[in-house]
Amino acid sequence: MSRIHKNERIGAIIHILTEHPKKMFTLNYFGELFGCAKSTLSEDLDAVRNIFQRFDLGVVETIAGAAGGVFYIPTVIQKEIQDFSQVLCEKINQKERIIPGGYIYTNDLLYDPEIAYQIGKMMAMPFHEETIDYVVTIETKGIPVAFMVARVLNKPMIVVRKSSRLTEGTAIHMNYITGSTKRIQTMSLAKRAIGKGSKILFIDDFMKAGGTAKGIEDLMKEFESEVIGTGVLMATAEPQKKLVNNYHTLLVLEKVDEETGQIDIRPVSL
Amino acid sequence: MSRIHKNERIGAIIHILTEHPKKMFTLNYFGELFGCAKSTLSEDLDAVRNIFQRFDLGVVETIAGAAGGVFYIPTVIQKEIQDFSQVLCEKINQKERIIPGGYIYTNDLLYDPEIAYQIGKMMAMPFHEETIDYVVTIETKGIPVAFMVARVLNKPMIVVRKSSRLTEGTAIHMNYITGSTKRIQTMSLAKRAIGKGSKILFIDDFMKAGGTAKGIEDLMKEFESEVIGTGVLMATAEPQKKLVNNYHTLLVLEKVDEETGQIDIRPVSL
Repeated sequence: MSRIHKNERIGAIIHILTEHPKKMFTLNYFGELFGCAKSTLSEDLDAVRNIFQRFDLGVVETIAGAAGGVFYIPTVIQKEIQDFSQVLCEKINQKERIIPGGYIYTNDLLYDPEIAYQIGKMMAMPFHEETIDYVVTIETKGIPVAFMVARVLNKPMIVVRKSSRLTEGTAIHMNYITGSTKRIQTMSLAKRAIGKGSKILFIDDFMKAGGTAKGIEDLMKEFESEVIGTGVLMATAEPQKKLVNNYHTLLVLEKVDEETGQIDIRPVSL
Repeated sequence: MSRIHKNERIGAIIHILTEHPKKMFTLNYFGELFGCAKSTLSEDLDAVRNIFQRFDLGVVETIAGAAGGVFYIPTVIQKEIQDFSQVLCEKINQKERIIPGGYIYTNDLLYDPEIAYQIGKMMAMPFHEETIDYVVTIETKGIPVAFMVARVLNKPMIVVRKSSRLTEGTAIHMNYITGSTKRIQTMSLAKRAIGKGSKILFIDDFMKAGGTAKGIEDLMKEFESEVIGTGVLMATAEPQKKLVNNYHTLLVLEKVDEETGQIDIRPVSL
């Protein structure tokens, strides 16, 4: 193999870090890949960090010491959050999206990988400094967005089922009351899915009164685990008081009017 | 802004391409980002292509002309597929995974973003040259893997439901018979989800007799659309003849023995 140039090392490092968000790579790993000294790599990593900073591409963090290494945190700047939230609101705000019952059809947005990844980056922002063991969601519509949050944080996802399936073994079932329609629903999760004492981030696409989020908090207690954060893509403005105390949302749904076909939705930050 | 160095341009280009698989970026886009001439960019892109090639990081393709641009295809080399398939088999081959009924618990693998992305890259391999409009899957377990295939191919995902939900509007329902257990099941999909004449890639985590894959083929006909490819993570060796003619699988499940706790699974390529 001919000599590897600085350009090439920097390019390969950036590709590998970007494709594995929040995964730590040791200097040894890159040293062996390139056959170069640690001092050379240190200079390369300085250059890498500067590139991410200069173009607002996220953060590259280096941990010193024997257990150390380097990893990429897919952060987004405030302006990008505002701009993209605005674009999302415009996409959602189309009267054809209104479904009988006052629901809004958003599958085409949530199931688009580019959009979902961007949403995942934005929804993960408040939680980068938290200790999280699992990203938990409930089937079905919120799974892609939750999975992108999980990818950005590099944590395993857990999907709570609305009915128990044979293929997941022994499960804990729990009945709960939806916050807005006061219906009894069931959620269930395989016993082996979550270890005791886990820290949980709950992610969903939508929150009205917060009955589901409250249900997840209760279910996690059955696993002797704790919800330490809740994030949704959109939350309704009413009821203002939700059944959970703390949650983050990107968008606020003020109103859906089935008769006039009007959707009133806005970024939370504006 | 001080002058942008070649290192910096190459690094930023690699980050942006890597974070947006199969999304085309025009030379103008990068020209404006860096404030540099197209001739300079052409040299940068040559360097970028060489870096991907030298370290087996995937393919960077350039389309010439006014409608042209550059994009990243997350391909994997044959050796990587074999090695990772082998690792997957070893992870799956643990008797604790066997669930009463002869099922295998794999959620911890399928729901791990790093593993799922790697599986997505491998499962997408046969389909990079195909014209695909949607990646279709059926809820729930296969969604993360299907979504990673969708991300690698940069196509929207569609999730067929096992029961119709109010929140997706008018839907087409279809009963079908599972291939192995001969039970009647329902699948349903919102009418607006898929346009006429669409080309479909069906992705699932598991195939036994192929009843679900056959059901999806039939359902897609109701949408005047066509399944042009089917990929699963693992398929059982028996029955050898499936209800669909062509499918790709990464792993072959030879046998699950509940009594002895033995799982016999192997990469298809070996």
